[in-house]
This record gives sequence, C-alpha cells and structure tokens, in this order.
Amino acid sequence: MGPMKHKHNFSSAAAERQDEPPPKSLRTGPAEGPVHGSGVARTPGLEAVGEGRARVVIEGVSPEIDGGKYPIKRVVGDSIVVEADIFADGHDRLSAVVCYREGGAQEWSEAPMTPLVNDRWRGKFQVNRLGIGHYTIEGWIDRFESWRQDTQKKVQANQDVAVELLAGAQLLEQAAARAGEADRAQLAQWAQVIGGPGRRSEAGEQLAQVVRSSDKAAMREIILLALSDEVAAVAARYPDRRFASRYERELRFVVDPLLARFGAWYEMFPRSCPERKARHGTFQDVEAHLPRLAQMGFDILYFPPIHPIGRAFRKGKNNSTVCEPVDPGSPWAIGSAEGGHKSIHPELGTLEDFRRLVARARNEYKLEIALDLACQCAPDHPYVREHPEWFKKRPDGSIQYAENPPKKYQDIYPIHFECEDWAGLWREIKSVVDFWIEQGVRVFRVDNPHTKALRFWEWLIAEVKAARPEVIFLAEAFTRPKLLYHLAKLGFSQSYNYFPWRNTRHELTTYLTELTQPPVSEFCRPNLWPNTPDILTQYLQYGGPPAFKARLILAATLGASYGIYGPAFELCANQAREPGSEEYLASEKYEIKSWDLSSYQNLSDLIQRVNQIRHENPALQLNEGLRFHPSDNDQFIAYSKRTPDLSNLIVTVVNLDSHYTQRGWLDFSPAELGIAQTEQYQMHDLLTDARYLWRGSHNYIELNPALIPAHIFRVRQRVRTEQDFDYYL
Amino acid sequence: MGPMKHKHNFSSAAAERQDEPPPKSLRTGPAEGPVHGSGVARTPGLEAVGEGRARVVIEGVSPEIDGGKYPIKRVVGDSIVVEADIFADGHDRLSAVVCYREGGAQEWSEAPMTPLVNDRWRGKFQVNRLGIGHYTIEGWIDRFESWRQDTQKKVQANQDVAVELLAGAQLLEQAAARAGEADRAQLAQWAQVIGGPGRRSEAGEQLAQVVRSSDKAAMREIILLALSDEVAAVAARYPDRRFASRYERELRFVVDPLLARFGAWYEMFPRSCPERKARHGTFQDVEAHLPRLAQMGFDILYFPPIHPIGRAFRKGKNNSTVCEPVDPGSPWAIGSAEGGHKSIHPELGTLEDFRRLVARARNEYKLEIALDLACQCAPDHPYVREHPEWFKKRPDGSIQYAENPPKKYQDIYPIHFECEDWAGLWREIKSVVDFWIEQGVRVFRVDNPHTKALRFWEWLIAEVKAARPEVIFLAEAFTRPKLLYHLAKLGFSQSYNYFPWRNTRHELTTYLTELTQPPVSEFCRPNLWPNTPDILTQYLQYGGPPAFKARLILAATLGASYGIYGPAFELCANQAREPGSEEYLASEKYEIKSWDLSSYQNLSDLIQRVNQIRHENPALQLNEGLRFHPSDNDQFIAYSKRTPDLSNLIVTVVNLDSHYTQRGWLDFSPAELGIAQTEQYQMHDLLTDARYLWRGSHNYIELNPALIPAHIFRVRQRVRTEQDFDYYL
Repeated sequence: MGPMKHKHNFSSAAAERQDEPPPKSLRTGPAEGPVHGSGVARTPGLEAVGEGRARVVIEGVSPEIDGGKYPIKRVVGDSIVVEADIFADGHDRLSAVVCYREGGAQEWSEAPMTPLVNDRWRGKFQVNRLGIGHYTIEGWIDRFESWRQDTQKKVQANQDVAVELLAGAQLLEQAAARAGEADRAQLAQWAQVIGGPGRRSEAGEQLAQVVRSSDKAAMREIILLALSDEVAAVAARYPDRRFASRYERELRFVVDPLLARFGAWYEMFPRSCPERKARHGTFQDVEAHLPRLAQMGFDILYFPPIHPIGRAFRKGKNNSTVCEPVDPGSPWAIGSAEGGHKSIHPELGTLEDFRRLVARARNEYKLEIALDLACQCAPDHPYVREHPEWFKKRPDGSIQYAENPPKKYQDIYPIHFECEDWAGLWREIKSVVDFWIEQGVRVFRVDNPHTKALRFWEWLIAEVKAARPEVIFLAEAFTRPKLLYHLAKLGFSQSYNYFPWRNTRHELTTYLTELTQPPVSEFCRPNLWPNTPDILTQYLQYGGPPAFKARLILAATLGASYGIYGPAFELCANQAREPGSEEYLASEKYEIKSWDLSSYQNLSDLIQRVNQIRHENPALQLNEGLRFHPSDNDQFIAYSKRTPDLSNLIVTVVNLDSHYTQRGWLDFSPAELGIAQTEQYQMHDLLTDARYLWRGSHNYIELNPALIPAHIFRVRQRVRTEQDFDYYL
Repeated sequence: MGPMKHKHNFSSAAAERQDEPPPKSLRTGPAEGPVHGSGVARTPGLEAVGEGRARVVIEGVSPEIDGGKYPIKRVVGDSIVVEADIFADGHDRLSAVVCYREGGAQEWSEAPMTPLVNDRWRGKFQVNRLGIGHYTIEGWIDRFESWRQDTQKKVQANQDVAVELLAGAQLLEQAAARAGEADRAQLAQWAQVIGGPGRRSEAGEQLAQVVRSSDKAAMREIILLALSDEVAAVAARYPDRRFASRYERELRFVVDPLLARFGAWYEMFPRSCPERKARHGTFQDVEAHLPRLAQMGFDILYFPPIHPIGRAFRKGKNNSTVCEPVDPGSPWAIGSAEGGHKSIHPELGTLEDFRRLVARARNEYKLEIALDLACQCAPDHPYVREHPEWFKKRPDGSIQYAENPPKKYQDIYPIHFECEDWAGLWREIKSVVDFWIEQGVRVFRVDNPHTKALRFWEWLIAEVKAARPEVIFLAEAFTRPKLLYHLAKLGFSQSYNYFPWRNTRHELTTYLTELTQPPVSEFCRPNLWPNTPDILTQYLQYGGPPAFKARLILAATLGASYGIYGPAFELCANQAREPGSEEYLASEKYEIKSWDLSSYQNLSDLIQRVNQIRHENPALQLNEGLRFHPSDNDQFIAYSKRTPDLSNLIVTVVNLDSHYTQRGWLDFSPAELGIAQTEQYQMHDLLTDARYLWRGSHNYIELNPALIPAHIFRVRQRVRTEQDFDYYL
C-alpha cells in the first residue's frame, strides 16, 4: 500500500498557536477555571485538560487527612514537614516548593523541597500564627538543571557541545528576562560567554571545527563556567514556572497555642475546695488555693459544671434516686430556676468572683481555668420552659429524659439535636461558649461530645476559633475508636482516650504507638488521665499508692498533656462503690467532700517533681518522638522521647507491678546520640537525682514500687574528663 | 448571683421552623447546593453546614484511589466490594447502602451494606456493562431498628413499655405513609395493634395500670409482634431517609472486557513470520500461521510497529549506525516517504490484508491482534515535513533526535509534547488510534509511555474508551515505580513491570504481593513477560531451557496476563549481544530472522499445556487471591490462587534453580477447604497429570529442572470412597 494522506486540521492547529496567554500556574487535576488555549474546545474532553504542557505530577501528599477534608494540627513554633511523590515523564530534572499561607496572611510563602529517594520529595516550614493556614505544592521542570545534567554527560563522553552551550545560553537569556535588577546583567553576560562557541559553530561546521581545535583551553573554561554551581544557583532563582503544576488541593493546618498540646490538668469540684472550712466551697476558696496548684506545676485547673443545679429528680449520695434536702446534686444536672448554662451556681459565688478567679489564675499563677461544656439540662432548666422545641417529646407528651436502656437518668434531659430548630439551638450553644469566653475562659472540656450531633461540633469549633484561635477544646470522647478520631478531625484540640484501661506493657505500647504516629498524630492530640470522677480503674483500686505513682508517671511522660481528677488522685482514693464498678464510693459528683491534704498518702511532692521535670525537658512536651525499648522483664515498660535535634533525650522506665520489686535488663541503644557502644554515658534520674553510669545498649534496672516505681532518666553524654572526674552534658 | 436572662432570638428560631423543605438526601461534606432552612444565613458558617440533622458519618471508603481522583478497574462480571467506616453520634442503629450506576445507566442502584466490626461496613455489587460507572455510599439512622433495640432492652428489664409501643406504632404509621400499595395496609394495621396499650395509657396512669395488669397475656403478644423480625423486615423497606448522609465523593470504576485482565500474549515480528519461506514476511504469512498460535492457546498476537520504516539514519544489524542496503531497519523508526502512523509497511501487505488478518484472527481463532503505539518518528516521517512544530528544534536549527546522554538515536525524532500546538498533536495521535480501531484493532501496546506527556495518556485513553470501552491499552512502563503506577491510574488497562528481573523467592514474593494487593491491585493490572525483544535477562542467558520453562510457568501462573516475545522464547534463544547486555545477539529488531520451529528445544508443547491449564482453571484468570506458602528450601517458590468460592484452588511450586534437582518440604494448609489435618487430599499435577496424595500441611516436593521445573497442582478434595477406590472432586 502506498503513502497515505494525513488529514491534519492545519487551520485549527495554527489558530491555537496565536494569542495564547501564558498561564501562571496550573493545577494537576482537571482545571476548574477558564481553559487556556483557544480552539481546544473543539475536541470534547480537551477543555478539562486545561494546559497540556503541565508535565509534573504531584500525588501522595502527606500530611493529608481524608483527602484534605480536615486540617492537620500544630502549635505555635512547630514545623510542618510536607512530603509528596513528584515526578514527570522523561528524564528532566524537577524543582518543587511547598506553598503555604499562615492564618491571616494574604500572600503565599514558599519553602524549597528536596528529593529523597524513589521520587519522594520533602519540604519544611515553620508556623508562627494562631489560626487556620493553608499549604500545597508546586512543581515544575527545571530547564537549566536538566540542560546541565545532560550536557555534563556529553562533556564526560567527549562529545562536541557547541550547540548545547548555545541552548544553555538561551536558557540563561530567558532567566535574565525574568530576573530582577540585581542578577539580570550577570545572567545576560554569562549567556553571552557561554553561547559564544555555539554562535560561531552556527556559521558552519568548518568554522566550528576551527574554533574548537584552535582554542581547546578557552572552550574548557567556557564549559566549566556553563556547568558551574555558581551559574546554576543564580539561574535557579528565576525558573520558568509557566507550566508548573500545582497540587489540586489546598490543605489546611490549624495552629493552636502550646497549651493545646502540652499541659498538666487538675480537675477539682470547687464546692469541695480543700481550704473551704466546712461549708460549700466558693470561687474565693479556690482563689486561695491557687498557690498550691501552681506550686505543684499544673497548667490548667478544670471545673465540672459551675451552673445552677436542677432540683427536679435531683440525685442523692451515690447516685441514689432518693435525695435528701441537704444533697447538693450532680453539677452535670444543669439548670434550675436560678438559671442555666450562662449562670453561676449561687453558692459558688458571683460572676465577678469567677472573672477575678480566671484573671488571677492566669496572670499570677499561669493557670488557665477550664470549664465543662455539657449540652444537657435538668428538668427545671429555663430552656425546658422557654424552648420546649429543643427537647424530644414522648408520645405521651412527656419530655424524653436521658436513657441508656435499661438505665434511666430522670434528672437529665438530653438536648434534641434533631429538632426542627437545630440552627437556633446551635446558635444558642455557641452563645454559651461565647459568653464564657467573654468572662475570660480559654479552655473548654466538652462532656460526652459523641452523643451530640457531630457536625455541630465541627461548626461550633470552627466558628469559635475563627474569632478566638487561642481557644482549646478537650473532647471527653470515651467512645468507639472511629468516633473518637472523627471528633478529633472535626476540630477538638485534644481528646481523652483509652489510656485509663491500658495497663500492660503490650497494651500501652500498642496504643501509645497508634496515638503518636501518623495519621492519628496529625489530627488527634491525646490527653492522658489515670482517673476521672467517673473512672476509678481496677488497677488503681487494687494497686495502692504505687499504682497511683506509676499511672501518674506514665500519663505525664507518655503524653504531652495529662490530667488527674485531683484531690482523689493526690490522696490515692481507691474505694469503688461496689466490686466491679469503676464509680467512686461516695462520689464527689453527688456530695461535698472534705479532702484532707495532710494525709501521709498525699502524692503532691511527687506530682510537683514530675510537673517540674515536664517543664524543664522539652522532649516531654512533645507526643512525637516516642519510642519503646525492649526489656527482658515484662513488668517493665521503657520508652524514650526526644527533641528533633536530640538535645533533650528522656528515657522513662516504669515497673507496672504495684506489689513487687522487679529486676531486669533494658535494651536502649545510645548510638543515635553518637555514643559508641564502648563509651560510658550517664543516666540521670530526674525523680531521685541519682546518676547511673551505663555502657552499651544492655543495662540493669531494679525498681521497688514501695519506694518509687519508675525512673525518669535524662540521658547525658560525657563531655570531658578532668583528672578523675567525668563531666556530663 | 441570681438567675440570668437568656437572650434567645425567639423570632428567628420560630421563622426557621416554617416552610422548611425536607431535603431528600444530604452530603456529609459541606453542601455545594442551596442551603436548606431559611434564616440559617444569619450566622456565618451555618450555610456551609447545609442540613444539621444529617447525623451519619461516612469515611475511610475503600476502594478509593487518591481521594477518588482515579477510577478503580474491574472486568465484566466482577464484583466490587465496598467498605467504609459508618457511624453516628449516640447509640442509634444505622442502615447503609452502596449506591452504584453502571456506565450508561440513568438511575442509581443500591446494594445493602452490613456492619463488620469496629464501625466498618461492607457491601457488594456486580458490574456487567463496559465503560465508566460510579459508586458512593448513603447511610441513615434506622429509626425502627433503634426503637426495637431499646425497647427490647426495656422489656428484658421488665420495664413498662406502653409509651414505647406507642412510639413504635408512630414509626410504623410513618413507614406506612412511605410504603407502596402492597405493604401500606399491613403496616397501618400493625401500628394500630402495637399502639393499643399506649393509647389506653394516655388516658391516665390509673387506667394503664388496669390494662396492663388485667391483660398480661395480650400485652405479651403485642410486644412479641412489635419486636418481631417480620414487622422489622417490612418496616426496613420504607426507611426515613430525609436526613440520610451521602458520601461526598462519587467514585468511579472502569469495566473492561475480561481480556484486560486475563490473556496470554505472543509477540511476533510479522516480517519474520516462521512460515514465510525465505522472504520478507507478510500479513498473509501470519494468517497462515494463526492456527498454530491458536493451538498453543494464545489470546493476543502482538506486532511491533507495522508502519513504513524510515530510511534516514536507518540502523543496521545489531543496532549498527552502518546500514547495508538490505537491512530492513527497526520497525520503531516509524515513517518514510511511504507514509506514517496510519500507513502499513508496503512489504507487509495492504490495509486490506491487515483487516482480513484481524478479522480472521478474532472470528476463527479467538485471537486479538495488538498493535504497537510508538509516538516517535523517523527523520523522513511525513509529520516532520508537514508538522515541524511538533518537533523540538535545536539552537542550530536542526531537529532534536532522541537522546539518553551520552547515547544518541539519530534514527528517531521524539515528538515534542511541550510544543505550542500540543492540542493539535494530541488530536492527531488520537486520530491514529481511531484509525486502527476502524480497521478492527482493539488492543494497543504503548511504547515507552513514560517518556511522553502523562496527561496526554489520561485524555487519550478516556476519549477512546468513551466511544470504545472494549479497547485495551498495555503500557510498556519499564520505569520508576511511582511513574509506572501513575500511568496505570491514568487509564492504562495493563502494565509491563519488573517481573523480568525478579528471580529469587524473596524478590518474587515481595513484588507479586505488592502487585496483587490493594491499593495497587485496584488500578494496576500486571502483564508478566519473561522476555521482550529488548530484554533477554541474565537468568535466561545462563539457565538454558529449564530457565525458560520456569519463567514461563511463573509468568503464566503468577499473572492473569502474561506474554512472551514468541519465537525467541519458544526456541530458548539465549545469546546476548555481549556479556552484561540484555540485548539479543543479532536482534530481530534490526534484521529478518528465520526461526526454525522444528528445533528440539521448541517449548510449544509446554506452552500449549500451560495455556490450556490457564483456560480451564478460573483461579489462574485472577490476580487476586494469590498467596505464597513457605518451604524449607529457598530454591522453591510455592503459591496458590483460588476463586472466591474456593471451587478452584491451584498450587504452583517452581524450582528456581535451573541446574540441579531440589528437594524439600512445602507448608500448605488445606484447612480452608474444610480438609482436616488428618484427612488425605489429592494434588493433581496438571502439567504431568500425576496425582499425589497429601495429608496435613507439610509435604515433600522434589523437582528436577532437566525434566520439568514445576508442579501446577489442582487441589482435589476426596468426595467419597468406594470399596478400595477414593474419588476426588
């Protein structure tokens, strides 16, 4: 068969070459905006392509939560390390940057990315402003580097590169045209020199031969210049990014205050404030108590609800349905004739008292007051009368009280988030949060968020933080794992979790690894509580003070945030209401307690020491960097935390057996500190101030729980030896 | 402090309750459409919420490639198993369905999902139509089941449920209102009966007491009916989906013909067709050769480019730059004065000859002809003259030939995909594909797609398959892993891969596991080639015929698709151009070969047997279901493939040592077939027809590579024993 006629559409092809605006930057996905390139529309499908010359692919971006649906979380001063698979067809060299914009910034900033292996790239930037920021990636063909790489290979193979030099000169001229004043002349001059031999060779092979053979030394110098790092560095400043690809998603990050990640919480019922002298505690009593809490090193003082307590169906001692007139009721049964969620329980004091407490705690003691946001009402809450539409009616006309069949909670009406006026309800709850923010509160602990509309939390937290990015929300998400993590994605700054029930080495290792590794660590910050007013674990019930000490140290060193339900924990209160129950006997939820802080079992000294260690060692202020280390004794759990620069490295070893002294060997390799296997290093126990000299990766541990069930070692490297003394860093 | 005034916006809350249209179905993400609920706009941020009562969360959907950016791949008759994390706040029971729409379908179909553990749900549907389909998930609160679960608990706790029954009756009434003719009356009647006691109790506690105590038996019957599976099943047909959540992405699936997954490929240079009798082979020679290929059991016959071969810079034997007048040149140097990509090399025959070949191959021999799509030109290709704008000019005015510095390929001009007329170029290449589709071709093997614009392939394949969903594209993506997988995501039906260079048990196990597991298996279908005209591996060079047999069996049983560069493989051609090279000596790429099929080394009998086994055993037509089994001898690789219903289970064992007999023990547990450890089962070697009786999970293997280096066992379970004979399934 003979040659065939090719039916090209010459006219349309020509038309497309005219007047095509150079696109600034192009998405890798189907374009959403107007299509570049006239005439493209003639072939269906080509419109969606946008710019066919955008060759760089950006995918597999991390961190990215659920395809960018939710933001990652950081605190002020953190770095965000972004990775992606970045590649193009062929063998050209690429460049890529992380584009980022902190909250409130108008302009995008850029941080360079560098290739790792296997087409994976990495870049890093620091975040300094509170609020929501954005990041994405842009990549392009690096024309000059591609040219340089190929020309280098040809030079090495002794090929003639006169024409290549001319091509390089053209690239430099183009860079000059894009360059600022400072570099334009330099680039143009280099282009002139480097293009020289090629321009001569254009006059014909004959002449080029002459030039090359006659002046090999000059040629060598020109090549050296053309391929030099100096020229490449200047050229790299003015890349041709017309056909750059931009990752199709703008990902988000939330920047919170440090307290969102790192803080020690103390939960206290103000009505049972220890210093109150035989009457209902008040905010003034708490104020007097602040110095002790500050002394112990706490960062956040959290109160159960401080609002008027319902009288209808009020619960008596030990959750009894029989209530004596003197019984104060559960603070979570919110609302009475005296007010609702924006009111203060009169016996605690006035709004003025509260505001003064918040201000003094913050300004004088570096303590934030955290309030409890419990979206539920006692039957005599004003909402029930004013907004019956926010509560669910049963077919007999009564209002549905809280149930977990067959259990009934007649003293509490849940709010009906499926009511028709859900929008009004949402706004009202937001107004509650706003109200307390106006009083100075910055931290909210949210009661059972998993039993309220999930999308409500996403909206509420976003709205509140848009105006007040410093506000912190802790989710009491004691619920199924997917739901716990979902609440974290929706915006909660921190979350309670299963720590209270993770006791063995295997359980703790598995769970804390999950919490502190991506993806979970990107959106969920753990807050580790050994106890709460609702949770007195079996481990604490049967382990005595050593169990309290061990759980305190575990919580405080495994988690950057931890908390205790304070007086009960300090005093090692361990009596449950009945065998098998995790409820406290004579729970503070239903009565006013008199805590005797002078008890010999008071752990306040240990708590103070642990909190001080946390404040002095930045490694313990991070959740990242947690690694577990093996031991031949299953009763030991050992783990380390480190700052990224390794300047602070803490190794904690806990004896999980509350009853017996345990002995064994710990495997911990000091190699990553640059300490040789044969070299001695110091394990400085920050709890006891004892200093152990270790060598190699295998060292002996012995812990008697009756004394103290743990070591918190700071690893110290020997810096110098003078005469008979060794000094450690 | 006294009670506080609550500043609710009564008027706006009331306004919102009026005239609110019930939304049909709501996305879980921020709504894109108009906002439901008037007055919502008053609070910024609430518009984005859409419907605040959509409580169900759907996330973690699988399969989903890159956040839904790319479709998953299936073939006709396949099932798609969809999983997701589905949950809501609180303790209500949920329902969920997979919504799917096959290519061309107007309406969504639904398949039920069922909960697994930990809030994970699964549903399944079958795909039967070629083309692009869509799937997503919808979930909602199952009101009746939630009510049933809670009421059941109350009944078990002997609580009074009269009001609950009334609530259940209301739900049934609502279901009746949604129900079709068939069930409406039944539901209404049940509602009447079940609501009875509650309606009586509405008249006052006194009366209710009387009713309950006087007629306990009647009450028991009503409760039994209310909680019965029968009522629940009918109610479940008419759920309240007004506030259902729909997953925010519509994910896509591509349905291809079976051949996209399962096929045996035979690559042949038609000019070297074995039956041609000492002249340039023609399509007519190939036609005469078809019976032999069909007899051997191949499904696809693939030709290197069949277009006119360039004369400028034509390469001689062994890729020499010196070309003798008799040298035919490389078929990949496409185009000459005789035509380009839409022309046929005159010595092969006419377009008519080609069309007849394609038609006869398909209709008489069930063989598809695959063409090679190589987007490159010889210097004398008509495009070079007619479309100089599609080629890159060097600064000296010459056209840039192909390079991989320092290597030069002067006989080939790459197409410049970054040219300004990229759109015209794309359309022209598509017209080439369309042209050959018009001639009857359905399968294209794409030469080096990773050196052409990636987005071009996405567009081309989508456009072609929109009109012709049966067309198959095989990517010759011998490139870096990320790029290989990206091409698969972009639409290639199949891909070459690193199989040729994976030789040891560890290498094969790791790599084939990666290829046959999600996520890769969702978008990338492997095609395993032991050799190609460019790849004669060291393993084949030094292993002799046993190496060819082993690699054939590995390719054919590990991959649902496999291929051989045919005559050279059949005849165990193993001479490389030079030590260390993977190029064939006297490569067929540059000369016409005379293959002597009568050679004693011809593997055609084995190939025929292997292809027959593949056709007879559906397990080998799948890539999923591949599992590797341990052996104490590292030279053995053992693996099984199975159909989902386990009706076909094939165990292959290959001796990877081409030189020596290997002996060892294989671990394969028959338990999943329900065969007890103590029971005998039959391993029927489909290669030799030998039948081995095995027992337990540890059995002896011995393979002499000089005979045959592999077993392909079909596992047969004993069905019955008669007298002294055992029969196996």
